[in-house]
Amino acid sequence: MDVGPVVSAVRLYAENLRPGAVFDLGSAKVSKEEILDFGRRFDPLPLHTDEAAAAASRFGGLIASGFHTLAVLQRLLVDAVFSRAAVIAGREITSLRMLAPVRPGDVLHGSMEIVEVRPRDDGTAVVRSRGALTNDSGTLVLELQGETLWEHRPPGGRGGTV
Amino acid sequence: MDVGPVVSAVRLYAENLRPGAVFDLGSAKVSKEEILDFGRRFDPLPLHTDEAAAAASRFGGLIASGFHTLAVLQRLLVDAVFSRAAVIAGREITSLRMLAPVRPGDVLHGSMEIVEVRPRDDGTAVVRSRGALTNDSGTLVLELQGETLWEHRPPGGRGGTV
Repeated sequence: MDVGPVVSAVRLYAENLRPGAVFDLGSAKVSKEEILDFGRRFDPLPLHTDEAAAAASRFGGLIASGFHTLAVLQRLLVDAVFSRAAVIAGREITSLRMLAPVRPGDVLHGSMEIVEVRPRDDGTAVVRSRGALTNDSGTLVLELQGETLWEHRPPGGRGGTV
Repeated sequence: MDVGPVVSAVRLYAENLRPGAVFDLGSAKVSKEEILDFGRRFDPLPLHTDEAAAAASRFGGLIASGFHTLAVLQRLLVDAVFSRAAVIAGREITSLRMLAPVRPGDVLHGSMEIVEVRPRDDGTAVVRSRGALTNDSGTLVLELQGETLWEHRPPGGRGGTV
């Protein structure tokens, strides 16, 4: 998707999105300390907080909470897209699947594909998208489908698609 | 759901769950510091990280990241249920809706309802459940439906429902 000239100058509006467009979200490394810290705060199961117990489990070692992995995807989304987009709010996640464990040191690479853009009468648009994280081996570890509410175009702006 | 005598003595297995049973997950207070900290780490949009910008937004003030609110629900689930349950892994979230903003100082109350228990041939069971968080005013702020994989019954244990 060629949004370069637009997004560097102005914010990204729903009218700039085309179904099928894929955003590369870059990557993030997940450290053991972060896995333990998130686990202790929000998901204190031994698999996420206790190295010895995790080693003895069917996973053979510490793995990240799925909610931690989801938060990593959101961070990549914000840094790469939402921070310069006219997003009003998240509406709904319609599917979220954890497909493979995330282990200490894994580098996760994110992408977001635009599935559908539904303009509404009030000047906003519902954007349906698919987010994904793959690990260094190219294995899909998390897949998400959801809807976000966007401003359709700039106030007073003219129509047109990038 | 009367699981008291069982869960105090042994772990909670899928065979102990009945559709329609509701677990009270207790409550958690969400502080401004936690909203800011989670936002800065995982969802650095002004609505979650910048008090002045959030005050000028359509929400009128700082609100928690939806992923933070989701993590709060998971913490309540772990403390009240999963820490004593034979849960193997989360499988899928089939619906997650953020229905109302969570603001600094809000106390969120959690519940989990068992929707369906599907035993499988390998000794495990897929448990479909609905999680919810309400705020102090009784407003539903988050609703989630998902599937987790459980051990069906203790190794060598006899059948029977609590």
